[in-house]
Amino acid sequence: MYDLIIIGGGPAGLTAGIYAVRYGLDTVILEKNVLPGQIAATDLVENYTGFTAISGPELMQRFKEHAEIAGVKIESADVYSVRSDSGKKVVMTDSGDLEAKTVIIATGANPKKLGIPGENELMGRGVSYCATCDAPFYKGKVVMVVGGGESALTDALILSNIVKKVYIVHRRDKLRASRILQQRVSKKDNIEIIWDTVPEKIEGKTGVENVILRNLKTEKVYSMPADGVFVYIGIHPNTDFINVKKNSSGFIVTNEKLETSLEGIYAAGDCRDTSIWQVVTAVADGAVAAVSAHEYMMDLEFAR
Amino acid sequence: MYDLIIIGGGPAGLTAGIYAVRYGLDTVILEKNVLPGQIAATDLVENYTGFTAISGPELMQRFKEHAEIAGVKIESADVYSVRSDSGKKVVMTDSGDLEAKTVIIATGANPKKLGIPGENELMGRGVSYCATCDAPFYKGKVVMVVGGGESALTDALILSNIVKKVYIVHRRDKLRASRILQQRVSKKDNIEIIWDTVPEKIEGKTGVENVILRNLKTEKVYSMPADGVFVYIGIHPNTDFINVKKNSSGFIVTNEKLETSLEGIYAAGDCRDTSIWQVVTAVADGAVAAVSAHEYMMDLEFAR
Repeated sequence: MYDLIIIGGGPAGLTAGIYAVRYGLDTVILEKNVLPGQIAATDLVENYTGFTAISGPELMQRFKEHAEIAGVKIESADVYSVRSDSGKKVVMTDSGDLEAKTVIIATGANPKKLGIPGENELMGRGVSYCATCDAPFYKGKVVMVVGGGESALTDALILSNIVKKVYIVHRRDKLRASRILQQRVSKKDNIEIIWDTVPEKIEGKTGVENVILRNLKTEKVYSMPADGVFVYIGIHPNTDFINVKKNSSGFIVTNEKLETSLEGIYAAGDCRDTSIWQVVTAVADGAVAAVSAHEYMMDLEFAR
Repeated sequence: MYDLIIIGGGPAGLTAGIYAVRYGLDTVILEKNVLPGQIAATDLVENYTGFTAISGPELMQRFKEHAEIAGVKIESADVYSVRSDSGKKVVMTDSGDLEAKTVIIATGANPKKLGIPGENELMGRGVSYCATCDAPFYKGKVVMVVGGGESALTDALILSNIVKKVYIVHRRDKLRASRILQQRVSKKDNIEIIWDTVPEKIEGKTGVENVILRNLKTEKVYSMPADGVFVYIGIHPNTDFINVKKNSSGFIVTNEKLETSLEGIYAAGDCRDTSIWQVVTAVADGAVAAVSAHEYMMDLEFAR
């Protein structure tokens, strides 16, 4: 039986691992991807303090190396469910059951889908959630970016250096993104913002050809040609596998010590109900969760 | 008038600055020291994710450079007080009054004092709170370390490589520090732990000569010769200058958005009432406080 099983090897999980190993906890991180974390799909990170500018994959690689050098064990596994069984926790995975005294959930989140006709059908054939991954396929083409936050504008800027034209389709008449990104976008001749508008349908045979748009103010519905649609309308937490208290969007509810509604189970990073989802906050969550797990272990030992 | 004044240029303040500048806020950081932050007095940092092992001053230098490259303005000033004046905040400093729409307090904390006779009198002449700073003066000598947490053991290890003998004086019969540090300490022949004991008085003419100790179990009081006393019994927040809600130890009380009891004033980092005080959590606090200050500014603009 492990002292601690950490589910997820992104910034939160790896930091929890680094802290747990320093506390002498027998710890394993379970992760199904080689380089996980939303940050690994990010082109340029300029706000992880200490690194002026670093690519997302490079930053994740450094996090992973740090954890490995610190002595954290990382195993490849897909977790199906977690249950509390007379004090101990049982983590069911594709390679069998594992037991631990405490568990930290750091499974992160994935991009939210539009939920409109054509989205699933054309995914990977014009519909994308990651410009860093897919931009090179759209050289000289016309693409649509859906959303108005940090991710939408960041990826619109990446796309604008490669494609012929970027339309940003945004449901409001104001952007949520930071002013620095708004300024950069306004300086790009080939980015145009379509305000007060949502996509209703994505059309195409072997790839995206047209997007049906609706203007929410005029109620006008019209078709616009596009070769790609990049979607940035928020994130959805990877928390379906565990039965703890969550908010209405599925993010796990914790207290300040990052305790979930189940004793000895903690949540950290993007899967948690919090005010902002950033690398710096995920990393801090990892540390707090590990410290709390360690305290819980100490209490168990004293109680014996 | 500034959009945002950040008081303190440690990890929390610098990160708040990096985020604020990205949001286009006209921001200044006020800091009185060249390289502030408790971390700058730390020998080796092994738990700031992304840096396997880095010296405290080097990490702070990287944080500072990151902020400067991001365009954060840092000014040298000592802050006397902050007051809310019909919406705007007035920050009184040794170089005059400054005005801002919002304020982030990131003034950190300093080591707590023992509060025993001889401590103040012999400070800098044998009494120290920082082995990284002062260890070289004690080559071949006998020193006492007071405390049983991470800082006490970290600095005991630093000292053990330089001095002849280190006594760790700890009020309990168990250490709070992480197991990895406990193991490292137990492997050092020249470190000895004096359990259940507190110092009562530090004696000496031109420097530390003896320490009067009391065993809390036997109530025995005795004198031990020592050339230096290094104190690690916790931290005291630098919050005397501001009149907001604090806990009984002086740490500023905030909600999850890091709002203090005064509207438009936020607290971040070691000066805040929270569960752990680490570089990773200070940095995360800085980001959260800046995002909250930005939201507050947006609300002000919309309300106009």
